[in-house]
Amino acid sequence: MKKAQNNIVSIIDKKRRGGTHSEEEIRFLVETMVSGETADYQVSAWLMASCIQGLNLDEATWLTQYFVESGEVLDLSSIEGVVVDKHSTGGVGDKTTLILVPLLAVTGVNVVKLSGRGLGFTGGTIDKLEAIPGFRVSLSNDEMLAQIKQIGAAISSQTADLAPADGQMYALRDVTSTVDNIPLIAASVVSKKIATGAQAIVLDIKVGRGAFMKTREEAQELAETCREVGWRLGRSISTVISSMDQPLGYAIGHTLEVIEVLETLKGKGPDDLRELCLKLGGVLLLAAGKFSDLDKAEAELASHLDDGRAYQKFQELVSAQGGELEALDDPDLMPQPERIRIYPASKSGYVKTLDSLKIAQAAKSLGAGRSTKESPIDLGVGVVLRKKIGDYVEEGEALVELFIGKKNEEEAFDLLKEAIVFSDSPVESPALVEELSLGEALKTLQL
Amino acid sequence: MKKAQNNIVSIIDKKRRGGTHSEEEIRFLVETMVSGETADYQVSAWLMASCIQGLNLDEATWLTQYFVESGEVLDLSSIEGVVVDKHSTGGVGDKTTLILVPLLAVTGVNVVKLSGRGLGFTGGTIDKLEAIPGFRVSLSNDEMLAQIKQIGAAISSQTADLAPADGQMYALRDVTSTVDNIPLIAASVVSKKIATGAQAIVLDIKVGRGAFMKTREEAQELAETCREVGWRLGRSISTVISSMDQPLGYAIGHTLEVIEVLETLKGKGPDDLRELCLKLGGVLLLAAGKFSDLDKAEAELASHLDDGRAYQKFQELVSAQGGELEALDDPDLMPQPERIRIYPASKSGYVKTLDSLKIAQAAKSLGAGRSTKESPIDLGVGVVLRKKIGDYVEEGEALVELFIGKKNEEEAFDLLKEAIVFSDSPVESPALVEELSLGEALKTLQL
Repeated sequence: MKKAQNNIVSIIDKKRRGGTHSEEEIRFLVETMVSGETADYQVSAWLMASCIQGLNLDEATWLTQYFVESGEVLDLSSIEGVVVDKHSTGGVGDKTTLILVPLLAVTGVNVVKLSGRGLGFTGGTIDKLEAIPGFRVSLSNDEMLAQIKQIGAAISSQTADLAPADGQMYALRDVTSTVDNIPLIAASVVSKKIATGAQAIVLDIKVGRGAFMKTREEAQELAETCREVGWRLGRSISTVISSMDQPLGYAIGHTLEVIEVLETLKGKGPDDLRELCLKLGGVLLLAAGKFSDLDKAEAELASHLDDGRAYQKFQELVSAQGGELEALDDPDLMPQPERIRIYPASKSGYVKTLDSLKIAQAAKSLGAGRSTKESPIDLGVGVVLRKKIGDYVEEGEALVELFIGKKNEEEAFDLLKEAIVFSDSPVESPALVEELSLGEALKTLQL
Repeated sequence: MKKAQNNIVSIIDKKRRGGTHSEEEIRFLVETMVSGETADYQVSAWLMASCIQGLNLDEATWLTQYFVESGEVLDLSSIEGVVVDKHSTGGVGDKTTLILVPLLAVTGVNVVKLSGRGLGFTGGTIDKLEAIPGFRVSLSNDEMLAQIKQIGAAISSQTADLAPADGQMYALRDVTSTVDNIPLIAASVVSKKIATGAQAIVLDIKVGRGAFMKTREEAQELAETCREVGWRLGRSISTVISSMDQPLGYAIGHTLEVIEVLETLKGKGPDDLRELCLKLGGVLLLAAGKFSDLDKAEAELASHLDDGRAYQKFQELVSAQGGELEALDDPDLMPQPERIRIYPASKSGYVKTLDSLKIAQAAKSLGAGRSTKESPIDLGVGVVLRKKIGDYVEEGEALVELFIGKKNEEEAFDLLKEAIVFSDSPVESPALVEELSLGEALKTLQL
């Protein structure tokens, strides 16, 4: 214990003075943090030193590796063919997972998706699925494997103890102002993905208002770091940088988002949501060796949104996980709001700004998000945009529909007022996908 | 609590990004650390950010102030005249306090000295006094005040709750590699001194091998910071930078040091020890407004070492605190070693290096220092140098005397071998006092 304490103090000291860690030092740090020999206050001192002095790619890779080794790694070896996974850094109105999982499964690519509950302004994928009556969000590993073999897809809440060291370190980062550091974020994101066992992964890195990465440069740096760390640890990680300057799609809130998902799976739905799903899915088809041309991969996926096969696969998924299929045809069977109210445009003009963060806060104020880990969510409430950036609106015309439950809408109205800015002259709609970089294709993953 | 947490995270974040704190932020940090609202891991993240990004003089001053306000401040207002205090950053063989306290009292300056036990390689002042049979090291505040009024001097172990926030923060610094930072050290040192209530303070800042400050520049920076922080908080802090390139005096170990103190108080004793006592004391006489010329102040003090009055005052002090006066005349009544052994010179030559740190470790290996707060000390053991830097020694001649108790001397011999380096050509004895800067004299302190 004394020796360990000497070691950890000298490791902290090294980073304080801008030094570079050896693999052994990173291993020691992570392992003794998990064992409790290194105290929280020592980890946080190291985190602060790392945020200020920096961590290089070697250090980020070792950190990722020992995060992974701190817990279970799902064994997907019994599944034939490539298994892929997708992760987003968190966006407002982002329901791509619910579309991508069945869509990719149609093409014969297996998708394993372990999702979390939302702790941000709106719920996570798992919360959204709970809007479908009967849907079982927690599968055992065996159930998940069996389901993937049967229908090629499964979405489950994360029950396994994946990369617990990351969780332990993240809890400290959150309260010591050491969250926004690219190598630490990369290690956190990539370690979770590696632990879920997928060989090819796409990361959707959101940038802009309402996203964790505020600038294009930061997003690019994170993307590059994740791709490189993934490659060094034997995984193909591709990255897409997509704009969060306005919410994705129109709906924010659980039932509302599921309805938008169903529309999109039927070949309808918002253009931006469809575009992002095709891009993310196309990248994964390339990474899995199914296609060598992105346009062709996207066209294949688009055809499955339009021919009904993606929707049919979603029905299979819902059915396999115990959800009521009738709810898909009759959304009234899902949680509903008590009333609906229109937020009208205060003036005529072009929508110039739709601040994602404030719109998410508006949805949260209606009950669609959690304040703490234990807070209940009202699955029936939320907001649906009627206009997006660049759209023209007449004074008094509906801008947003509010789906209201037990909480009143006053705060939401105030937030929407702040979120939406008009322009007298036409405004161009912002590009959604800003950048796309393929991960190192895995040679062994040819079909 | 939630608000406090938001505040502390934003305070940490500000320092992470190189910002400068307001007084309110420093107050909040210290007060919530003491109350427990701010967690250890948050304080350590802030400490690391401060070590890397720096703290300016305002921040150091506020930190000092709120350290002081976190506990008691001794009320010395009932004492007539100036009360002075002295602090050393910690040196090997440093027994100046035991000489300075009675010496200054002879001149009519009151000295209050709250000392600690040693946690370093050798014991502290309080441990040394325990070598005198019967000496009571812990006085109540009332006893201390009464004794100062009666004989002008008291030395007591620190029982009051002085600047507890500093202690709390220091405990974290020690295990997070955030100790060696000038503003943090200054706040720690100055807050303790202010809490003891003295108006004029001299800091003896050690520099070199075996000292906390390794370079002259660091020592100067610390000295300047302490003087400035003291001045801003209404105290006159003077600084002396003295060399720790070799031990002070010849004796290291408790009984051995008390014997050297008695010699020095009788006008004998090592030159360097006498010189440093006169400098530190002279500076305090100036700060207290007793003299305006340092040479005259030193001459006055020297006369009291030579005329026996300093020794007589020490007898009064020992007597007042219950110590056996006979032990001062017959050191055999103090704790004794079991045996004495000579460490001889391995070759003829001039002593070039006497590494203070290694010599202190040698004394500790014999039992003269603590490993942990609870470790017992053997007051009878230690080492006495027979030569200092620049002295010529013949091969086989005694270099060091080892006073040995229950622990054997093997390790000490090895350490001494490493500590002492010879030169064939003459070596100059290093300067002891490297620099001396008077604090702002307090106008109100004229007698």
